[in-house]
Amino acid sequence: MKNVLLTIEYDGTNFCGWQRQPGLRTVQGELERVFSILCAQSVQLNGTSRTDAGVHAYGQRASFRGDFGIPVDRMQMAANHLLAAPPKGKKSSFQGLQGDIRIKNVTEVPMDFHARFDAVGKKYIYKIQNRTIPDIFHRNYCYQIPKVLDLESMKEAASYMTGTHDFKCFQAAGGKEMESTVRTIYQIRLYQRMLPEDSGEFSPSEISIEVVGDGFLYNMVRIITGTLVDVGTGKLSPENISGILAGKNRQLAGHTAPPQGLYLAEVYYNEAKRSQR
Amino acid sequence: MKNVLLTIEYDGTNFCGWQRQPGLRTVQGELERVFSILCAQSVQLNGTSRTDAGVHAYGQRASFRGDFGIPVDRMQMAANHLLAAPPKGKKSSFQGLQGDIRIKNVTEVPMDFHARFDAVGKKYIYKIQNRTIPDIFHRNYCYQIPKVLDLESMKEAASYMTGTHDFKCFQAAGGKEMESTVRTIYQIRLYQRMLPEDSGEFSPSEISIEVVGDGFLYNMVRIITGTLVDVGTGKLSPENISGILAGKNRQLAGHTAPPQGLYLAEVYYNEAKRSQR
Repeated sequence: MKNVLLTIEYDGTNFCGWQRQPGLRTVQGELERVFSILCAQSVQLNGTSRTDAGVHAYGQRASFRGDFGIPVDRMQMAANHLLAAPPKGKKSSFQGLQGDIRIKNVTEVPMDFHARFDAVGKKYIYKIQNRTIPDIFHRNYCYQIPKVLDLESMKEAASYMTGTHDFKCFQAAGGKEMESTVRTIYQIRLYQRMLPEDSGEFSPSEISIEVVGDGFLYNMVRIITGTLVDVGTGKLSPENISGILAGKNRQLAGHTAPPQGLYLAEVYYNEAKRSQR
Repeated sequence: MKNVLLTIEYDGTNFCGWQRQPGLRTVQGELERVFSILCAQSVQLNGTSRTDAGVHAYGQRASFRGDFGIPVDRMQMAANHLLAAPPKGKKSSFQGLQGDIRIKNVTEVPMDFHARFDAVGKKYIYKIQNRTIPDIFHRNYCYQIPKVLDLESMKEAASYMTGTHDFKCFQAAGGKEMESTVRTIYQIRLYQRMLPEDSGEFSPSEISIEVVGDGFLYNMVRIITGTLVDVGTGKLSPENISGILAGKNRQLAGHTAPPQGLYLAEVYYNEAKRSQR
């Protein structure tokens, strides 16, 4: 019996999210199909985060256990080979479905290790393109905002969100009822990169928001982003943030930014726990 | 009666090419659907270039004639509104199908103007990512080559292709039998942009190949690119190019680069002709 931990990158565009659902193409479903072939047995994955439809990952994690013949150090190449092949019955001219998941790492872990329960933190990145003229080639990979954003105000607002707070105001309905809505955000970093000039009203740029925390409520990063955008456009001011947090009411916070700008970037584990034997 | 010229940008990923085909999603089919609604009559487009499945455009052109009520200066916004709406019966979670065509310009032209026959030249851009670790987020937008490319040799090879030549060696089977395979390439420009470091064996970069000419044979830019890549990896040398051209045999040239790296960037017209009344 072995326990195996995967590090996974995916383009969420053509998936109905992470979680397995009958008849729908999901990341978990696609990975379980491929690893069941490789391991010659039914494989069930424990993923760290149930990302929504359209959300991407640079470093999702998932673990699974089993007795299988294939050596762990052969799994990465074999899985990537199967993941890049066009699905049966799909026209090969339909480029969008091929190779949109890549296994970045496969490693053996102690039997009692669990990809979700043992995570001690995560990093998400949210990508915004601030531009007047839409860029259709990035429509599935960022949130495009045609009004100029005030980055300094957004940074100030983000500083009020950092730390340990009750984040009930940033929790969407439809999530699980949590025992506690207190979480710690270790860092929110905003940075801007200028994009090639176009014929729009201002110089286009990409603004990335990196959020590192010990855990996240349902849609929390997307609501944090929407709130920061509302500050950037002047709809809210940085001074409103403390009141929004204290109010513990979703209605006080900003809008929910769309899924396609969100990337699950990294999952953190206690290294001692992950490698103990 | 009016004659209207469109400038069109599209992400070719989810299209079976430009040309209308029953039961398949094509760029021409999608545009004819939308403009038939706007003009309240059956619209048939004359496109400049029949791009293949997976090929993109920054500046495709197409013209159509008709007697219609909608003012020409309202067409762009109205068409982009319809093009961005999710197609009927498609799940909205399937992001990939929404807004992958954008009308960049609509202008009235003289009645005898034709988007294809009056074109005097075109610019294509072919994008390569030269990297060891594949980037799944760009898999539909460039050709990813994991062996380091010698850019200087590629530039030298390109210089032998520039000018007026019989380009029969760069014509794929399956195209129309042309009366002449002589064309003029005005310019081939190669430029490199470094990409963020990864854990690969060399620093990743993007190499763009811009080709401007008076006309192009079937798959010509993709075969030019494949030949330049074969020079970049050392399979061919720049000195081979003159012999390849003189041989007029497709078998002598390099491989055909895949469609997803190709962008129809610009179409050139004789401005006097385009604006005469």
